Amino acid sequence: MPLAITYDDVVDAQSRIAGTVRPVTMIAAEPPNLLFAAEFMQHTGTFKARGAVNFVTAHRQAGTMPDAGIVIASGGNAGLACAWAATKCRVPATVFVPATVPEFKKAKLIALGADVRAVGTEYAQALEASMDHAAHTGALVSHAYDNPLIAAGAGTLLLDMLTADTFDTVVVSVGGGGLFAGLATVAAQRGVRVVAVEPEKCRAFAAGLEAGFPVDVPVDSIAADSLGARRVTPLALTAAAASDTISVLVDDTSIVEARQHLWDSRRIVVEHAAAAAVAAIRAKRYEPKPGEKVAIILCGANSDPSDLG
Amino acid sequence: MPLAITYDDVVDAQSRIAGTVRPVTMIAAEPPNLLFAAEFMQHTGTFKARGAVNFVTAHRQAGTMPDAGIVIASGGNAGLACAWAATKCRVPATVFVPATVPEFKKAKLIALGADVRAVGTEYAQALEASMDHAAHTGALVSHAYDNPLIAAGAGTLLLDMLTADTFDTVVVSVGGGGLFAGLATVAAQRGVRVVAVEPEKCRAFAAGLEAGFPVDVPVDSIAADSLGARRVTPLALTAAAASDTISVLVDDTSIVEARQHLWDSRRIVVEHAAAAAVAAIRAKRYEPKPGEKVAIILCGANSDPSDLG
Repeated sequence: MPLAITYDDVVDAQSRIAGTVRPVTMIAAEPPNLLFAAEFMQHTGTFKARGAVNFVTAHRQAGTMPDAGIVIASGGNAGLACAWAATKCRVPATVFVPATVPEFKKAKLIALGADVRAVGTEYAQALEASMDHAAHTGALVSHAYDNPLIAAGAGTLLLDMLTADTFDTVVVSVGGGGLFAGLATVAAQRGVRVVAVEPEKCRAFAAGLEAGFPVDVPVDSIAADSLGARRVTPLALTAAAASDTISVLVDDTSIVEARQHLWDSRRIVVEHAAAAAVAAIRAKRYEPKPGEKVAIILCGANSDPSDLG
Repeated sequence: MPLAITYDDVVDAQSRIAGTVRPVTMIAAEPPNLLFAAEFMQHTGTFKARGAVNFVTAHRQAGTMPDAGIVIASGGNAGLACAWAATKCRVPATVFVPATVPEFKKAKLIALGADVRAVGTEYAQALEASMDHAAHTGALVSHAYDNPLIAAGAGTLLLDMLTADTFDTVVVSVGGGGLFAGLATVAAQRGVRVVAVEPEKCRAFAAGLEAGFPVDVPVDSIAADSLGARRVTPLALTAAAASDTISVLVDDTSIVEARQHLWDSRRIVVEHAAAAAVAAIRAKRYEPKPGEKVAIILCGANSDPSDLG
């Protein structure tokens, strides 16, 4: 597997998935130098639809999609996106989840057309079962972020944003780094700075930058359900080295505050992962210069809104 | 009080309130001939901020704003917008509500800077007390919809939408008819058709159209908290007569379905009133012709999201 993606990979992904994903909606925010990229309105509620449909479509076009279809271990955003993309492309999808996953998550996956298999009580068991499934059926293994096609697909978000608006800086939450890798690759080519935001206790990207290679980190954040990767993809570190990237950390209190603020001021519901990017600005972990135009990516909304009131 | 508003009234309102209200965000929806105007992100969560700030600003500019400021009887969207606009313009606002209004609504009004007075157990008592207050203090009485400045301010929404995008038809929910009057006045001038949507059992506008003048109607709909006017403003009937307007009715079941659909498919939270406009299209109470581009106004989001899940 290549250790880097190129600008052309993202441009190719954009033409491949055009008409399948929704164009991003840009929102003028306050103060006037701020924009929100409302990607929480994407199919399945996150940017992950982009990478998933790029992955499935590219394999179909290359003739490398097996009859058994695609398999992934995830009860979260990656599983939803994989199930959606597979159904959209008329490919079977098998999604392994721990049996402890809430019923409504299983129901969503089933509604998206997936064959849902509940195995064990921990993610590791579901992952192992998904690998067994792939070995026995020949199904193609997908991943939440550590794959060039997934990362390039995610990167199309920045191409869309740059078509709709102009800005100097993009602020984005980082989990496993697939979205970041795609964005930073485009950003380097287009002269955009990237501010990569992680929760303080969920810093796989920052730790990888410090070490110079991916390292395992402990994960303990309210945003861990979607940002809780233990190890960043190497694609992200390669992209960071080639771009103007700043890594910042935010605490959970400021994430919760930012999520509530989006609801109170704009009636926008996002998940904690998405609020982390907003928290970076609100808590002044990144301070734009006068006149600097900043686009904040609201990358997902698979969140229970009942605590917002 | 004039019985009609003019296009120039709305254009004047637009320059008067420019920079105070948020520009509307347009969302490309599906199928591709549909757009959403995401006015639920407006200050105080509804379009009513537009009319309220036009009303306050126009009176200040004309020298007709008394020292006692402005008074309104409303614990709902009109009260929120009035309180916000008054604070924004540094004018005192007194808001009368029934004592039965939930504490969180009072708290919101207080947070917006209003002097909140809880009187009686019914809206009529709060209204009477607000009139007494006006008589004793000289405060300027505002209204939720039955006022040319309020209607003209609301109409700026369509001017904003036409600046951001092009479309043939605008679909909007109608309560007391202030927003409709403003929109229809602009629509007539700009060659846009208006589809006016009401709940079946909350049809003050349709009844007024049939009678040829405003008549009282019973009110019984899940959207009654914001669409539940018993009588439409004459401004709306005048504007309807001068425009290409179609009146349609939707049932409560389709309103609930449309609100849930917006959440499930787009992670958008709107109030039932706003969902009524979407219901008109989903339930085929208005069927666009092939190629007809339709903008649906999502006019407000002051709704408890906890039932969306």
